[in-house]
Amino acid sequence: MRQETTILAFDTTGRGFTDVTRAVARWLDDTGIAEGLLTLLCRHTSASLVIQENAAPEVRTDLAAWLDRIAPEDHRYAHDDEGPDDMPAHLKATLTGVNVQVPVIGGRLSLGTWQAIYLAEHRRMPHRRQIAAHLIGA
Amino acid sequence: MRQETTILAFDTTGRGFTDVTRAVARWLDDTGIAEGLLTLLCRHTSASLVIQENAAPEVRTDLAAWLDRIAPEDHRYAHDDEGPDDMPAHLKATLTGVNVQVPVIGGRLSLGTWQAIYLAEHRRMPHRRQIAAHLIGA
Amino acid sequence: MRQETTILAFDTTGRGFTDVTRAVARWLDDTGIAEGLLTLLCRHTSASLVIQENAAPEVRTDLAAWLDRIAPEDHRYAHDDEGPDDMPAHLKATLTGVNVQVPVIGGRLSLGTWQAIYLAEHRRMPHRRQIAAHLIGA
Repeated sequence: MRQETTILAFDTTGRGFTDVTRAVARWLDDTGIAEGLLTLLCRHTSASLVIQENAAPEVRTDLAAWLDRIAPEDHRYAHDDEGPDDMPAHLKATLTGVNVQVPVIGGRLSLGTWQAIYLAEHRRMPHRRQIAAHLIGA
Repeated sequence: MRQETTILAFDTTGRGFTDVTRAVARWLDDTGIAEGLLTLLCRHTSASLVIQENAAPEVRTDLAAWLDRIAPEDHRYAHDDEGPDDMPAHLKATLTGVNVQVPVIGGRLSLGTWQAIYLAEHRRMPHRRQIAAHLIGA
Repeated sequence: MRQETTILAFDTTGRGFTDVTRAVARWLDDTGIAEGLLTLLCRHTSASLVIQENAAPEVRTDLAAWLDRIAPEDHRYAHDDEGPDDMPAHLKATLTGVNVQVPVIGGRLSLGTWQAIYLAEHRRMPHRRQIAAHLIGA
């Protein structure tokens, strides 16, 4: 049994979803671990991780629009010094969460056929985001 | 230290919560691991995993009704080709999440007295759902 | 490779957020594990775990107010025998989740600069809450 850790970095293009599955799978391949557990942590409070549908892009469109309705910008927040999109971004990150775990079985991430791992950027502006990654197994 | 992985399958009866705690605990017993970490991943994008109250069934009734209010069917979604319950199901799965982790202490899942692990089906129709499971420990 | 488990207990002061990062980091230090994975499980159904901003306290104020709007007390819930704040507390715990994982890298929790781990109490009254903790690594 052995483990690997790393920090993966991604440039987002502002509000939206970046598919990080391939980058994560590449790192998994590099470690040579065939059976084990992958854990990711998004190291930010206004970006998060979501496992969702990888086929129809409209699902992400609807998801982003729904998050906008649930955590709207046009509300008087106490925390408003970083712009109107900041506090909603914290709320969206809290709702979606910053962790993801995927068992590794037979040398592959055990994601379902229609699942991908997305880094969700909730700020309007592009950001460089870090994901701490841990892999344990054999 | 050793690890085990498996795919558990459950038949849901349509929208609602299936208690999978016993099936998971049975698998844990079979492995003989007494101290460790259990990780589950629901391999779907319109079903999810929830740790919630195992006593009063009204809690699940209220939870389902709340999810219906928060992610209503009577909204114009861009992704609508799989029926009116599909996009709300994706939203509910995103809100509740597809992962669960439970430390194993003294041969048992360290869940609280009132906690159970539920597979949450968010589609109207029954589905066969898969949960990828990983256990590491000694 | 080795592992440690424990149950951490915290007294909350009623609805709000208790920063547990320091207590968790202290336990990590005690174990001497420098590279690995930390997993936490809140053993309750009306309290939860949240990784969010540790700087501006207004973020927590806004987060609590948002949870109140999203899961309001002034609604007719089927489950109402434990007071008007109980069912909303279950909903808030479901939305925020009861798990947290943090890779341990170079002897430290790999949290981002602005991240802290909060135990979120969703009931009005103070409670003693337990967190099951698991650490694996070397």
